[in-house]
Amino acid sequence: MQPINIGLMGVGTVGAGTATVLKRNAEEISRRAGRKIRLFMAANRDTARAREKCGAEVVVVDDAFQIVNHPDVDIVVELIGGTTIARDLVLKAIENGKHVVTANKKLLAEHGNEIFARAHEKGVMVAFEAAVAGGVPIIKVLRESLAANRIEWIAGIINGTANYILTEMREKGTSFADALADAQRLGYAESDPTFDVEGHDSGHKLTIMAAIAFGIPMQFSKCYLEGISHLTAKDIGFAEELGYRVKLLGLTRRTEEGIELRVHPTLIPATRLLANVNGVKNAVLVNADALGPSLYYGAGAGALPTASAVVADIVEVARLLTADPGHQVPHQAFQPDQLSDLPILPMDEVVSSYYLRIQAIDRAGVLANITRILAEDAISIEALIQKGASNDGAAEVVILTHRVKEKHINHAIACIEDLDSVAGPVVRLRMEELKA
Amino acid sequence: MQPINIGLMGVGTVGAGTATVLKRNAEEISRRAGRKIRLFMAANRDTARAREKCGAEVVVVDDAFQIVNHPDVDIVVELIGGTTIARDLVLKAIENGKHVVTANKKLLAEHGNEIFARAHEKGVMVAFEAAVAGGVPIIKVLRESLAANRIEWIAGIINGTANYILTEMREKGTSFADALADAQRLGYAESDPTFDVEGHDSGHKLTIMAAIAFGIPMQFSKCYLEGISHLTAKDIGFAEELGYRVKLLGLTRRTEEGIELRVHPTLIPATRLLANVNGVKNAVLVNADALGPSLYYGAGAGALPTASAVVADIVEVARLLTADPGHQVPHQAFQPDQLSDLPILPMDEVVSSYYLRIQAIDRAGVLANITRILAEDAISIEALIQKGASNDGAAEVVILTHRVKEKHINHAIACIEDLDSVAGPVVRLRMEELKA
Repeated sequence: MQPINIGLMGVGTVGAGTATVLKRNAEEISRRAGRKIRLFMAANRDTARAREKCGAEVVVVDDAFQIVNHPDVDIVVELIGGTTIARDLVLKAIENGKHVVTANKKLLAEHGNEIFARAHEKGVMVAFEAAVAGGVPIIKVLRESLAANRIEWIAGIINGTANYILTEMREKGTSFADALADAQRLGYAESDPTFDVEGHDSGHKLTIMAAIAFGIPMQFSKCYLEGISHLTAKDIGFAEELGYRVKLLGLTRRTEEGIELRVHPTLIPATRLLANVNGVKNAVLVNADALGPSLYYGAGAGALPTASAVVADIVEVARLLTADPGHQVPHQAFQPDQLSDLPILPMDEVVSSYYLRIQAIDRAGVLANITRILAEDAISIEALIQKGASNDGAAEVVILTHRVKEKHINHAIACIEDLDSVAGPVVRLRMEELKA
Repeated sequence: MQPINIGLMGVGTVGAGTATVLKRNAEEISRRAGRKIRLFMAANRDTARAREKCGAEVVVVDDAFQIVNHPDVDIVVELIGGTTIARDLVLKAIENGKHVVTANKKLLAEHGNEIFARAHEKGVMVAFEAAVAGGVPIIKVLRESLAANRIEWIAGIINGTANYILTEMREKGTSFADALADAQRLGYAESDPTFDVEGHDSGHKLTIMAAIAFGIPMQFSKCYLEGISHLTAKDIGFAEELGYRVKLLGLTRRTEEGIELRVHPTLIPATRLLANVNGVKNAVLVNADALGPSLYYGAGAGALPTASAVVADIVEVARLLTADPGHQVPHQAFQPDQLSDLPILPMDEVVSSYYLRIQAIDRAGVLANITRILAEDAISIEALIQKGASNDGAAEVVILTHRVKEKHINHAIACIEDLDSVAGPVVRLRMEELKA
């Protein structure tokens, strides 16, 4: 049988990892795939690096369009990232009838509808296991293993940088800034960490998972994003005291009214498996009607773990190379003409429990006022602790609420902040039991 | 497109669950599969039950051979269990060119080599996601998602009954007998629990995972089996005190000399995710060279969770029904002519750490004797605690060892048991760091 020719576009961290895995495990891979997978071409601006990482037998070019236009390339692997040149390359590859493997979450979350439609027309596959949770095979699980289920909700720790920072803040009691500096020193965070710590990256991944789980189009623009840079070690400590850990979660849930799609720091009970996912690891908890809860855990980033997912996709595409499109697993699990138009819910309509921390200037009467305001918005209290009191009578009040619509808690918070006896803004964190 | 006709053999717990899922989620399933999946026939000795569970539109028979011989059945689902009639039915279905979905771990672990060879000859699929860890999609993960990896080892909690009993013993300090009675009362254990508590069931599942992970034939007869019926609440308590939890693990590992294949109670550090898998849940930890450690957690048994895996297999087979065998994922991940003849290691050659509990009749001098014996067998001690002492000077000595071959620890134990100052047999449990 002919070897499958791979064209690798982008020889950065993951690209080099992919070359390494293809070479190191060549025998193991061909024993599984039933044919040889050959790294045939590689494109990188720095061609010397590409040559060093891919080996002398690989054709190295500096223009990736040479790969998507080359007649001998069977599968194009896009590891350039971003949505400009990567989008052009992927669309051109599809137009040329080539199968595509990509790790580009931003490209799919923002342009996936267009890309999948073109791929469907041309009968080619676009595989993207590496785009969500790195090496954790959550795309295959959602798309194939849970095919019998009505998926109810997904909660994921899907950004290793943010999870590392939160783990450090909890374990060492350090500030966000110090934990971030630490993560940057260790190479876990970029010099501009915005994308990771403000939730954009998690939002892209969550958008992709929601599309596959519920059979809806990609709708990243409607994803609510709230990051972790405003979190304090103090709130993480209080949460701990109350039996909770704070995690940056991507949450998507099917409700009667529509789809919740939201990324934000979240309190979860400390005994849950998800609460014990530490450092740069990723984990995704899925609740489905037949299976119930299931959890998938592993490395969400890094050269070799991400390459593990890229190469799994290559093997899968290689196996199906000559099969007709009818046998392919649909890109989004559901057939393209079977997508649903369920709306994405605005955050105001989302129901959650809340952690509130309130700075009381004067203790006298403040509790009565706070509880009155909450009662007026029909918000009931699950737990309340009052912490310390300086000489002037100031104290901090920490409240855990029962479940309530976000617009009601926001209204109550505005009223509380208006109280003379309250100083500064109220800290508000969402809380999820994740009982399944 | 024609609907796919399913012939369901066995309408017990999982069979009824499969009928429920196919009916309840019919719309969701056909949106994914791109065609209708129809429960066409069902076979059960009790035909009234089959009619009640499957619905009036299904053809019910009492002889399952009518299903495997029926020209309109596309996929045969074997949920009868056992290795006698189930084996005959599966082989006959294959002979008749029908695809098979089965949840039968015993059948595959003991007769899988024969069944896969026949299926390969006939170009039909035998899908078996439900055979290992119930609804947890570990077969697909090992076979497809980790295709790029050299899998190093697998450690799994793959029997919910045993895990429920161990969880009860730890949390409530009850004896094995009481926890078993409790599990039987709740329907988590059979009236004859041997198969679950003595490790046979875990051994079948482990055999299947090892075959797929390493590309070796099924070799259940070489699997080491040790159950949990000899465990005491006391040892579980001591382990806890030392920072460990006791779990019935299925462990398989690739070494230079061969494959470890073993089921036994195992101490694992309490902070590991696997140590926190409680009750009837299952979880499998896989260490692979590119991805590193990854964990898969969920319901390992029960009607609907197992049906989730059965129906996922049905959808997969339905998608590939008319594709040629070259496009199929090989049954054991590796191509049939690419299996390896690596030997299964005898337990004597397996390296592990150990927990030992020794009853010392007379404290004077006993420690010196024990440590001398261990030193003679080149066994080093990681931790040692001496517990209580009755009036006559008797005491218990608990020792954690560093890693050593099983034959050496067994030799040392025999010498320790020969000491006049030691009463009764030494309790020996294996311990795994599961660092990955």
